[in-house]
Amino acid sequence: MRILIIGATGHIGSVVSATLESGGHEVLRASRGSEWTVDVTDPPSVRALFEKVGEVDAVVVASGSVPFAHLTELTRDDYLTAFTSKALSQIDVVRTALDHVRDGGSITLTSGVLAREPIATGAAAAAANGAVESFVVTAAAEAPRGIRINAISPNVLENSPGYHSLFAGQRPVTDAEIGRAYRLAVEGLVTGRVITV
Amino acid sequence: MRILIIGATGHIGSVVSATLESGGHEVLRASRGSEWTVDVTDPPSVRALFEKVGEVDAVVVASGSVPFAHLTELTRDDYLTAFTSKALSQIDVVRTALDHVRDGGSITLTSGVLAREPIATGAAAAAANGAVESFVVTAAAEAPRGIRINAISPNVLENSPGYHSLFAGQRPVTDAEIGRAYRLAVEGLVTGRVITV
Repeated sequence: MRILIIGATGHIGSVVSATLESGGHEVLRASRGSEWTVDVTDPPSVRALFEKVGEVDAVVVASGSVPFAHLTELTRDDYLTAFTSKALSQIDVVRTALDHVRDGGSITLTSGVLAREPIATGAAAAAANGAVESFVVTAAAEAPRGIRINAISPNVLENSPGYHSLFAGQRPVTDAEIGRAYRLAVEGLVTGRVITV
Repeated sequence: MRILIIGATGHIGSVVSATLESGGHEVLRASRGSEWTVDVTDPPSVRALFEKVGEVDAVVVASGSVPFAHLTELTRDDYLTAFTSKALSQIDVVRTALDHVRDGGSITLTSGVLAREPIATGAAAAAANGAVESFVVTAAAEAPRGIRINAISPNVLENSPGYHSLFAGQRPVTDAEIGRAYRLAVEGLVTGRVITV
């Protein structure tokens, strides 16, 4: 398959790119600083990327950063930033990708465990992740031409130890588990799923 | 209890107001056109309402309208409107209410079945509802002074027949079921819950 990975330089994006490439796929790495340049928060930049890339069999998005602060300190702008950076940006990719993914192809988004588990300082991130996960359910059901849409919802990454104390007691996920989850979404048949890992 | 209902003139708000009033509570009805005037999408208006109202034992929010259109027709602005109108507005109420709800009081938000079921033309509504439901989980865990935070997630309303065809096969919920769900959140002990009805 020809697969576009948006957010390819982040930890998840790197793991997914390497995993899919070693599985024999053609992987196009996109990010602010990659060969395929894109600012996923800027819709014209997303459209330009897809026009350059042309047709693909699958799109994976693993991007978006969100503000972390205690519930009593998060501002209205923090929630808005979290939503636009992590949810709206991925929704924009879906809107654009629907015109560039081949019949029966797939689009895979990334949410996170905060959608369902309380993590200190994570209320804005939670709202953004919840938006992604619920969006996927209806978007997949309405997607044209058999295009599948899923979200991967990973727990804290084993290889990001800086976050482990914030996610105390949560089970860190390995790179192998991350790779497997995205392969399920890209190479499998599921659609409208939130794949927790 | 002294209970502030925001969105009191909508169908859910009316049912909840009547239910809690008949249960012996003092109910303050707030909406754009009510005795207690508020525009829930305008943070200064929300702050002014709480300053006028003073201390309350519970706050219920049942407001927010969202654009409905097919996945291929929803615009970026539609998703942003859905989020600000249905999710960010309710999050703003929580942020403000935390300074005005008495120790051990409660804040109850409203999401909807679209957070987990695919409904045609509902992708923007789904994202907004998902944001509310995931927000509640972390917000409740971080809330100060024993304040409880929950969301009620109702299916289509039996008394809103105009929506029944869109929610074909979903089980319409009665006013009695709506009233009971909000009583569970306001009078019960639960927190961090999404109460589906």
